[in-house]
Amino acid sequence: MAAEVAEQPAALARLWQARTAVAEIAARIARFDPGCVVIAARGTSDHAALYLKYLAEITLGLPVGLASLSTFTVYDARPRLERTLWVAISQSGGSPDLVESTRIAGECGALTVAVTNTESSPLAEAAALHLDVLAGPETAVAATKTYTSELFALWLLVDAWRGGSAGDASRRDAARIPDLAQAALAAAGVDEVAALFADADTLVSTGRGYAYPTARETALKLMETTYVAAQAFSAADLLHGPFAMLGAERPVIAVVPAGRAGASMRPLLEKLADQSATTALVTPSGLDASAWLTDRPHGALARIAIPSVAAELAPILEILPLQRLAHTMALARGIDPDAPRGLNKVTETY
Amino acid sequence: MAAEVAEQPAALARLWQARTAVAEIAARIARFDPGCVVIAARGTSDHAALYLKYLAEITLGLPVGLASLSTFTVYDARPRLERTLWVAISQSGGSPDLVESTRIAGECGALTVAVTNTESSPLAEAAALHLDVLAGPETAVAATKTYTSELFALWLLVDAWRGGSAGDASRRDAARIPDLAQAALAAAGVDEVAALFADADTLVSTGRGYAYPTARETALKLMETTYVAAQAFSAADLLHGPFAMLGAERPVIAVVPAGRAGASMRPLLEKLADQSATTALVTPSGLDASAWLTDRPHGALARIAIPSVAAELAPILEILPLQRLAHTMALARGIDPDAPRGLNKVTETY
Repeated sequence: MAAEVAEQPAALARLWQARTAVAEIAARIARFDPGCVVIAARGTSDHAALYLKYLAEITLGLPVGLASLSTFTVYDARPRLERTLWVAISQSGGSPDLVESTRIAGECGALTVAVTNTESSPLAEAAALHLDVLAGPETAVAATKTYTSELFALWLLVDAWRGGSAGDASRRDAARIPDLAQAALAAAGVDEVAALFADADTLVSTGRGYAYPTARETALKLMETTYVAAQAFSAADLLHGPFAMLGAERPVIAVVPAGRAGASMRPLLEKLADQSATTALVTPSGLDASAWLTDRPHGALARIAIPSVAAELAPILEILPLQRLAHTMALARGIDPDAPRGLNKVTETY
Repeated sequence: MAAEVAEQPAALARLWQARTAVAEIAARIARFDPGCVVIAARGTSDHAALYLKYLAEITLGLPVGLASLSTFTVYDARPRLERTLWVAISQSGGSPDLVESTRIAGECGALTVAVTNTESSPLAEAAALHLDVLAGPETAVAATKTYTSELFALWLLVDAWRGGSAGDASRRDAARIPDLAQAALAAAGVDEVAALFADADTLVSTGRGYAYPTARETALKLMETTYVAAQAFSAADLLHGPFAMLGAERPVIAVVPAGRAGASMRPLLEKLADQSATTALVTPSGLDASAWLTDRPHGALARIAIPSVAAELAPILEILPLQRLAHTMALARGIDPDAPRGLNKVTETY
């Protein structure tokens, strides 16, 4: 796991070099001109799917849904998908329910795209188009480099699809993503946060907008490697009910992005401070959200700062120190992060 | 909360009597002939949204997405929604982000429907159509009767939209829902499960297909009223990573529906038994899933049986004894379920 975490800048650089191939797939999608997008994935790839949902809704103006695979494989749904782009995301491209639902989606009229980390797979064969995220073999059970490569591949796909309209700033940032990833991996504060969470059996991770997939993926990494009961909520959903279970005994990781999405999290962070919740903040270097709390009583507080970057690229950087956090916390608990109990690298569901 | 839980059979009977009004809204939707559906909701209503997602995908063959409200209110997305049905579900009809995103969805071409428990509200005013679920005033912070009324109203809406094609068996069951709800509320086993979970600080609820919204709503009720860190996963997603954190110390509630959806949960239940996990099963009376486990070593086991009913109506019954479970567990912990800490009845998010 540690080796694969460290490989991410190189994997992202490889993908940037291969962007012309990604653009060819985007051109095929643009010609199809979908009216909506449905994304199918499980586990870590499901968080890349959630990222794509935000990206496509915000920058392409398309309604996007996340597929419920059981509707196909258990309830025999055969939806009308003539104007639908179907994107199936999977590290291995092997899970039977993904393969089967993608085959059916194609029969129902969708243009199907498989996004995998393999040259060939049952999923790639079942789909009309195939995007290889080129992360190289991943053997650790906890997916790390395939997640960030999926995110970057999806950004490159959407950017080419919209005709490179991301604006000069985003494109300049995209070219720098491998270097920025190196800096994010080296971010200070990981050990401090791990120490803060040393005794936690439960914790909550939260974010808003583009940062919400990061909160979800953080919770999954922590569940897989440290066995902490980590729960992820969007910062808005957290206020609708789950807030009741928070208290000084449940620490919180808040991924606070730049701009209005991050600003919208301020009332939540203040409410957490009022409860003396132990809080770790992950923010861009230009946004010191801890300053929102330091003039009022609050619980223990730590901060991990990552390089500032365009909002739609930030999720690629945010997760990097949090992968290191999961690894550090696992070792501190005497758990081998390369051998999570009860899991295999490829999970087959039906 | 206890009084509102008990009112549910009467609320469901009221809705059944009002089904002609629901059918008129369905006729307007059918004339619009949407190509896809987007549903907006938060908290308990978000689980009614998830139910509608399964119902519309399976029985109407439409792609369905759950809206990410921040794309509208934080990122200023203005999607193309000309062929889209937008359904906003909210007990109060008052949350600003729901109102604002529904107004924008209408401007972007969607046919908008507000599903609320109020005669008039900002959300109902922002939408083109309004469906009142007629549950009567709900004052407990933990929503109960509005949830089952939302589910039944959505079933009536979809059934009328598809022209009453649910089949004779489902329609007969729909007429009996108030009586069946009375029986489900009286289901045995609630106290036994509460005793089993007496010391739990965390637990996992799981289900598949139509039972997955029940698992989600169960977790929310438990978080709100008992402060247990309750996590919900679809039975398939649970195997992709989160399974690692399970062990004898984290009990599980498995909502096992009839048919293939329930049968697909058997490998998970067997894996849980192998770990000696404390497991509570919620099943239809005709499906004794505990028999799957009794011939192998397993942890503590209890079962709540609810009346058998058509699969698409079962979620209305499954949640009823689980609301009672939340109430019972809260009292056993000395928590007032009518005064959850940190919550108000109407949560305003932006």
